[in-house]
Amino acid sequence: MKVFVIGLGLIGGSFALDLKASLTNIEIFGIDEKEAHLKKALELGLIDFKARFEDLKMADLVYLAIPVDVSLKVLPQILDVVKDDCVVIDAGSTKEHLCKNVSDHPKRRNYLAGHPIAGTEFSGPEAAIHGLFKNKTNIICEVEKTAFKLQERAMEIFQAIGMRIRYMDPASHDRHIAYVSHLSHISAFMLGKTVLEKEKNERDIFDLAGSGFASTVRLAKSSPAMWAPIFHQNKKNVMETLDEYISNLKHFRKLMEEDNFEEVFNEMQKTNHIKEVLNGLNKNQEFKIVENGK
Amino acid sequence: MKVFVIGLGLIGGSFALDLKASLTNIEIFGIDEKEAHLKKALELGLIDFKARFEDLKMADLVYLAIPVDVSLKVLPQILDVVKDDCVVIDAGSTKEHLCKNVSDHPKRRNYLAGHPIAGTEFSGPEAAIHGLFKNKTNIICEVEKTAFKLQERAMEIFQAIGMRIRYMDPASHDRHIAYVSHLSHISAFMLGKTVLEKEKNERDIFDLAGSGFASTVRLAKSSPAMWAPIFHQNKKNVMETLDEYISNLKHFRKLMEEDNFEEVFNEMQKTNHIKEVLNGLNKNQEFKIVENGK
Repeated sequence: MKVFVIGLGLIGGSFALDLKASLTNIEIFGIDEKEAHLKKALELGLIDFKARFEDLKMADLVYLAIPVDVSLKVLPQILDVVKDDCVVIDAGSTKEHLCKNVSDHPKRRNYLAGHPIAGTEFSGPEAAIHGLFKNKTNIICEVEKTAFKLQERAMEIFQAIGMRIRYMDPASHDRHIAYVSHLSHISAFMLGKTVLEKEKNERDIFDLAGSGFASTVRLAKSSPAMWAPIFHQNKKNVMETLDEYISNLKHFRKLMEEDNFEEVFNEMQKTNHIKEVLNGLNKNQEFKIVENGK
Repeated sequence: MKVFVIGLGLIGGSFALDLKASLTNIEIFGIDEKEAHLKKALELGLIDFKARFEDLKMADLVYLAIPVDVSLKVLPQILDVVKDDCVVIDAGSTKEHLCKNVSDHPKRRNYLAGHPIAGTEFSGPEAAIHGLFKNKTNIICEVEKTAFKLQERAMEIFQAIGMRIRYMDPASHDRHIAYVSHLSHISAFMLGKTVLEKEKNERDIFDLAGSGFASTVRLAKSSPAMWAPIFHQNKKNVMETLDEYISNLKHFRKLMEEDNFEEVFNEMQKTNHIKEVLNGLNKNQEFKIVENGK
């Protein structure tokens, strides 16, 4: 099988790595607008060959892992080129615009809209890691619009690298993901900004910041080239989450101002419940490990 | 040496564990207002003996690791009881009020004001772990007000469990810590609240939340009994950081509203610089491991 990975960063690179580790009889071709990324991806063994856009006509499977604004433009062009039994899967963090954008494309049936809930705060081919997708959720949108045979091929691939599947419509996806992913990034970026602005003398951050700060601000290391287009495409939902977040922060501030620390306590205690939610998340994943091991 | 640990939670329990692992000829006595904590601490081997407040007169070293509002009341009472060559160290996350509160105590020289930058989001005796303090910073305030002999005893203990020392005045401590620790907790708690409120059907969080959300919201698992008094005592500084954080979030929102995604990109790129700051933090700690290993 000839797999083309477009965009050899964290997601595309890790996908290529795991595919090579899980399947035989597979050749991986890489396409990236940055020649340096292609070179690095070859060096690191993420891909077997460098390729050009016109080579896509040979592809059995295309994995598109580039910034979501570029996907909007490139996905129709890919569909124009690929053969009839090629499946084109994307990995973008927003789905509504992209799905709308190809809804009338004559090869819509060749496209499967996906979003793997997997990643780290790093980027580029060097950020690619083995096992990134293991026991992670892959959200699939509008599955009914993809040719059944091609769905099957995609599912085999996802299963091989250990992903769980969840189906969802693009609008619900974008709304939910605004809360559990996009808002976290803004909260981390603005926390980083606030502290950096204040602590001009960085030695103070070095010495005083503990693992709690590092954890809360971790996502502020993420790639702006990835994230600015995501916020743009999911503008309405993200602004709504941001409004609620700001309103909650203001309420907390008001309670402090009024010396109502009993209510400050209650606010935190109610939210402590997130423990069970996050534990549930882990348990759920452990359960799936067992299930996959059957 | 007779060491009394008051408060057998995450910090007190871990301190006891590491002390027993690092030093011989040491007996650890535990005091906690919760009988169940004392029992658990004995079971887990964190302490050798249960003790009562009046036993403190036997102590060579007292480690106070309880909520900061209770410390305000209890620290003077401890100083009243202990013998002249006993050193009393606290571990609270706010220092200005506590230092002021004992500034005129006849036994002020027996007290060393400390704040170990170490912890996890868990609490109670079961949360105690080995090595929690290794290569972590212990901020010491008003060191000149502690008797030199007692400073020396405290430093031996800190060195034995692998802590680095940094000296700072209480007001600067509280101001800096508001940024690098207290604000992170509010940001995480309010993120957790925002998402919990929205995602009433929690299955959606289970399946859609990734490691990024888990990391950003981690501190929202922290103990409200610990944190409400910290926010109270550091109210002025914390409200200032909160105002700046809210203002940065509003600015980000405004840029989004105006479709100025070029500036959204720039905001994130400028903050990406936090990478080097956090890497510096890690490097600094690695450097200290080598140094300690000499």
